[in-house]
Amino acid sequence: MKDYIIHDEWNIIEEGFVPELNRVSESIFSIGNGRMGQRANFEEHYSGDSLQGNYIAGVYYPDKTRVGWWKNGYPEYFAKVLNASNWIGINIWIDGVALDLAKAKVSDFRRILNMKEGYLERSFTATLENGNQVEVKSTRFCSIVDDQTGAIEYAIKAKNFSAPIKIEPYIDFDVVNEDSNYDEKFWNTIDQSASNGGSWVKASTKKTNFVVCSAMKYSIFHQGKELTLNPELVEKEKYASNLIESVIKEGETLTIFKYAANISSQNHDENKLVDVAGEELSGIYAKGFAKMKEEQAEAWKNKWTEADIVIKGDVAAQQGIRFNIFQLYQTYTGEDPRLNIGPKGFTGEKYGGSTYWDTEAYCLPFYMSTADSHVARNLLVYRYNHLQKAIENAEKLGFTNGAALYPMVTMNGEECHNEWEITFEEIHRNGAIAYAIYDYARYTGDQAYLAEYGLEVLIGISRFWSQRVNWSEAKQKYVMLGVTGPNEYENNVNNNWYTNYIASWTMKYTLDALDYVKENHSSDYNRVLEKVSFDPDSEKSKWNEVIEKMYYPYDEEKQVYLQQDGFLDKVLMPVNELDKTSRPINQNWSWDRILRSCFIKQADVLQGLYFFEDNFSKDEIKRNFEFYEPMTVHESSLSPCVHSILASKLGMEEKAYEMYLRTARLDLDDYNNDTEDGCHTTSMAGTWMAVVKGFGGMVIKEGMLHLDPFLPSKWEGYSFKINFRDIVLKVDVSKENVEIINESENDLTLILKGRETTISGKDKKELAI
Amino acid sequence: MKDYIIHDEWNIIEEGFVPELNRVSESIFSIGNGRMGQRANFEEHYSGDSLQGNYIAGVYYPDKTRVGWWKNGYPEYFAKVLNASNWIGINIWIDGVALDLAKAKVSDFRRILNMKEGYLERSFTATLENGNQVEVKSTRFCSIVDDQTGAIEYAIKAKNFSAPIKIEPYIDFDVVNEDSNYDEKFWNTIDQSASNGGSWVKASTKKTNFVVCSAMKYSIFHQGKELTLNPELVEKEKYASNLIESVIKEGETLTIFKYAANISSQNHDENKLVDVAGEELSGIYAKGFAKMKEEQAEAWKNKWTEADIVIKGDVAAQQGIRFNIFQLYQTYTGEDPRLNIGPKGFTGEKYGGSTYWDTEAYCLPFYMSTADSHVARNLLVYRYNHLQKAIENAEKLGFTNGAALYPMVTMNGEECHNEWEITFEEIHRNGAIAYAIYDYARYTGDQAYLAEYGLEVLIGISRFWSQRVNWSEAKQKYVMLGVTGPNEYENNVNNNWYTNYIASWTMKYTLDALDYVKENHSSDYNRVLEKVSFDPDSEKSKWNEVIEKMYYPYDEEKQVYLQQDGFLDKVLMPVNELDKTSRPINQNWSWDRILRSCFIKQADVLQGLYFFEDNFSKDEIKRNFEFYEPMTVHESSLSPCVHSILASKLGMEEKAYEMYLRTARLDLDDYNNDTEDGCHTTSMAGTWMAVVKGFGGMVIKEGMLHLDPFLPSKWEGYSFKINFRDIVLKVDVSKENVEIINESENDLTLILKGRETTISGKDKKELAI
Repeated sequence: MKDYIIHDEWNIIEEGFVPELNRVSESIFSIGNGRMGQRANFEEHYSGDSLQGNYIAGVYYPDKTRVGWWKNGYPEYFAKVLNASNWIGINIWIDGVALDLAKAKVSDFRRILNMKEGYLERSFTATLENGNQVEVKSTRFCSIVDDQTGAIEYAIKAKNFSAPIKIEPYIDFDVVNEDSNYDEKFWNTIDQSASNGGSWVKASTKKTNFVVCSAMKYSIFHQGKELTLNPELVEKEKYASNLIESVIKEGETLTIFKYAANISSQNHDENKLVDVAGEELSGIYAKGFAKMKEEQAEAWKNKWTEADIVIKGDVAAQQGIRFNIFQLYQTYTGEDPRLNIGPKGFTGEKYGGSTYWDTEAYCLPFYMSTADSHVARNLLVYRYNHLQKAIENAEKLGFTNGAALYPMVTMNGEECHNEWEITFEEIHRNGAIAYAIYDYARYTGDQAYLAEYGLEVLIGISRFWSQRVNWSEAKQKYVMLGVTGPNEYENNVNNNWYTNYIASWTMKYTLDALDYVKENHSSDYNRVLEKVSFDPDSEKSKWNEVIEKMYYPYDEEKQVYLQQDGFLDKVLMPVNELDKTSRPINQNWSWDRILRSCFIKQADVLQGLYFFEDNFSKDEIKRNFEFYEPMTVHESSLSPCVHSILASKLGMEEKAYEMYLRTARLDLDDYNNDTEDGCHTTSMAGTWMAVVKGFGGMVIKEGMLHLDPFLPSKWEGYSFKINFRDIVLKVDVSKENVEIINESENDLTLILKGRETTISGKDKKELAI
Repeated sequence: MKDYIIHDEWNIIEEGFVPELNRVSESIFSIGNGRMGQRANFEEHYSGDSLQGNYIAGVYYPDKTRVGWWKNGYPEYFAKVLNASNWIGINIWIDGVALDLAKAKVSDFRRILNMKEGYLERSFTATLENGNQVEVKSTRFCSIVDDQTGAIEYAIKAKNFSAPIKIEPYIDFDVVNEDSNYDEKFWNTIDQSASNGGSWVKASTKKTNFVVCSAMKYSIFHQGKELTLNPELVEKEKYASNLIESVIKEGETLTIFKYAANISSQNHDENKLVDVAGEELSGIYAKGFAKMKEEQAEAWKNKWTEADIVIKGDVAAQQGIRFNIFQLYQTYTGEDPRLNIGPKGFTGEKYGGSTYWDTEAYCLPFYMSTADSHVARNLLVYRYNHLQKAIENAEKLGFTNGAALYPMVTMNGEECHNEWEITFEEIHRNGAIAYAIYDYARYTGDQAYLAEYGLEVLIGISRFWSQRVNWSEAKQKYVMLGVTGPNEYENNVNNNWYTNYIASWTMKYTLDALDYVKENHSSDYNRVLEKVSFDPDSEKSKWNEVIEKMYYPYDEEKQVYLQQDGFLDKVLMPVNELDKTSRPINQNWSWDRILRSCFIKQADVLQGLYFFEDNFSKDEIKRNFEFYEPMTVHESSLSPCVHSILASKLGMEEKAYEMYLRTARLDLDDYNNDTEDGCHTTSMAGTWMAVVKGFGGMVIKEGMLHLDPFLPSKWEGYSFKINFRDIVLKVDVSKENVEIINESENDLTLILKGRETTISGKDKKELAI
């Protein structure tokens, strides 16, 4: 855990340059616009420790891992979002000495991530080896208005000298992924060009053949007056720049405006990428940096209007929640159904930047409530578009008849991870993908989605479940052998309660969906059944049989659901009896010891009770919570939010707040000592859920919005907004009361603190707390 | 399955050149002498498909595998025995055209492995692209008399031409392991030299710093008359040769005698390797090829006198069993306790050439019975020497107080494999290492071994078991969670019966050993107890408690031991109901499907019943055999021999013979379609056991040799010899009777077919069958 980020309501602030923290800050201060993003690397060359990262959404590489023990059905590769061109680079030499913070004496270093207006700012004074002192201030952002572009203002002031200065803005595709398996480089250059005032490099990825043109234009101002340039044009493989020689005098400032575009063959004809890049650059160059920055601020203002959470009386919490919301919207804007949300967004390489069940289980509710419903819908359509691949994936494992197993990790619908205990066995992800359809339809009321897309996916998943169980003669029940549940500190267990439950639930929901679509969208019903060759009689009766005779491990004495068969053979002990030096256990214990222990990485039975709350009594939930919570180590960032929400529901305010705190500033305070790898982007949605679903008590039952807010005692108040169907609602909780403001024209009837309440359009309701 | 090896009692014969079979033949025709060995690659250059392999026992490299999901406690590397210098190479050009069987027209190709005399012979006629036709015959062997050397006779006859000929005998260290993870080469040259008549290259391995000097001398005879040579001396990195130009006339023969030495820093001062190589070469050069070959035949004759098994009336079976015995003695001679038996011997790269539990469970009985007892003792001392590393290995996994976990795979005592489900969980290997001590002491009567070495190892292993179990409140028993049993088609199961049983057995045996050593070797007792800080009171009572309350999964209804908890939840079906296209399942099913199935890769419960036969009634063994045998797919080469032995004991002759057949010609007939990777060397010992322990009914009970032979009905007779303590016994079984010949001076009392019988020295006993 670290504590160096200065608390502020709207800004993330670092003061002082600590090279040892540089990778952490590079992650935290990352910027992005949903289509591209990058770590907070420096513009000028930096020879110190750094993880260089520039990413373009969806541009990945199937990196091969070679191990001796390949097993049948293993995918051949581990996909990773590629480090793409460095488009921020501006080399600076003063009197022949490179400006390099690893070599200069640095003072007054300050980094600010302005979340309100969406830009990154950095300023410092550097004293070079030859005594020359410069003041630098850079500002940059990835434009969410012109989302294939970014812009930089980079100002250098000569403090105590007059000397020649060389400036080299460049595009560089000669980059690596730090985690590439064979130190391989993944880009081949197609062409590059430098001309007076700009340059571009066009390159393609090996194997996947994505083609990207990265281009830049720039201008340089001397004391506010634009310079006429006569640069040296530099072109080498994967690299193109302008090298400008000038002179800077004591007290004077040179300002470089660099505009860049990343144009990808995903969105444009491969042969026109250079032209498109030129047009994009001309557009933003003409617009100018100041105007772009103004538009950026305006766009962010709109996002904040929809998505902001205000916390009163706790600046750290306020900063934390805004940081989470900010990073989520930097990562995914929901406009392109080909894209998804990598666990680290654009902030690092780990987990390959690919799609996990995090999206359905954690991110979907955030986007449903803070954005227009088409954003959440696009997340669902992403999986619909991968259905055929999911069927092929299941076939590889021996399933038939259109059974679909969605991959654990994917870029293009194929499984792209290769640990058998995860990809073959952590099949509960299939349930989360079904649940997301239910969750979306329940929240948005868009039942038509079932007819158009949802039913097909549900049938594929239910077919998988019905084949994945087997009849146990010994138990006279259907059992599910050899799975890994959400708690990845168990592998290859039998009858994981959560998986058995969500499997059975999926089949039930699919049966309901079949009835609904048949009744309400009969032509879709016929279309889908024909397309997937569905045999209603035999398949439905098989599912009903499995639902009826599914086995659920349960302990009669303790009256709790058992995480899996044999769980009570373990030595049960609470986490707080563990020696501190054992924590986190995944860094201090052998894998073997972890597997044998009772300790739970992330909510498992409790994840199920959270998803299916309505199906369990409060007493049941409480008993299970009290049994499992003490054994949970929360070494997945996805865990505490679920515990926080359940604790809120159970009235365990202190526990709810404790769990909330573990997620809210996870990255800002580098709680798990791993933020240097990137931020925990998908789990940030969990923080939002802990506030809205936990403290706010938001839940949808039978089409009706329920709110049941309370105020954590550490806070003076908080407010959040939700989009619910055609309503925008603001919920404002203070020490005295809850105020619900209906910002729309339409009336809304909801259950507020257990009571049916109607709030007219543009009206509000107050309720003493 | 293939069927191209010509059946012959003493020779392995291939006729006709089939490039597609070349890798398989390279494995089968491998030669070795325990210290070095090689695949049957060609001397002349071959541009076709080939796995080039020359190995020096114990020279390995810790090849790194890089995967994204490293888990705590994982070893960093996978060790592999390195491909060492090519010392057999002789390039030939005739009239400027290289002799290369991939390019020439080949006829009369014949490869013979002469097992009786221990050499490899190859002859062929090749018609080169220019029409020139040559007849070639090569003979070579790795000398078991001068075990750092090998020799080749290579004769070329010009059939239809007279032309210039170039001959280049060489040493080449520029070699690769095909399975290296980063296409890395593992040898660095230190120096090389070529002089008239010979050359050498001295090289060292990266990281492990083994240094090897490979050297050669040669002579060339023209029509039987030695030529005076004036070769061109060729030296390049890792390579040194002589290039000789001569002329060959129609009908004439040139014969090259090449002598080579591989001198390793394991056995000699690193700085004297070149000198030693020179001395060795001078020695064998002076001896000459014919004399060396004569000595080789004599040495093999001695081995066969001790170890041969004769089978009458079945040439294929005779060839099979001799091939197995031959390969075992080519691989391991037992003279060096630093060496062990890699699963593929010197015949390929797979499994890294390292030590597995195969040694204790399968190979030890073979060497105990066919060689002097010091050979088996050396195999035990190998593990004793690794005890400290085994303790460190257990510490890495969280065990304390001198608990020892022997590695699953090792070269130097460290774990050098990195699949968690194997290295962390397949801990039954620890039991096999304890069992081997028991087996050795039981067979040889060398109880003093316990005092000197055995007890220390047993204490370390028992400490491990006592910590590895945990108390289950639910079961009120000690359980062992998260293991992989011998059946690797299950992973991370709870309470594998075999593992629980061998754990408990080890503790019991250790308690007995403590008593025995205390009573009979009190100074050793005190020495050992002090050395390992043994606390008799607390440790013994803990072990007794675990022994008493150990849990063994058992089904009351079926009255069988359960392979593990939950086994009866599986869909149970016999292998013979499987569709043929599913077999072998490890090539046709996903790993996931295999894990969930009931199918058993290799004997598991049955392995335990085989080891501990005395502790179970025949009925019990039969019930379990009949339950598990039908579900066993035998996709480990180590499996059928155990089933064969048990079937023999149960009087199921047909099943015993069926299982025997699966191992006896496994490689000769390429049964599993994988002999191209190398031979299944360690499992060859299982074939020997199936004959001697199965058909011969050999077992030791309470210090007494038991024999209970029967004759498989397909055979006319068979005979084998065993060393038992100070006795050499020949057992000769015919259709009519069993003849037991005591070849020693001493009398022997044994139990023959259930009856105590004494055979005087140099006497024999006959018994109608």
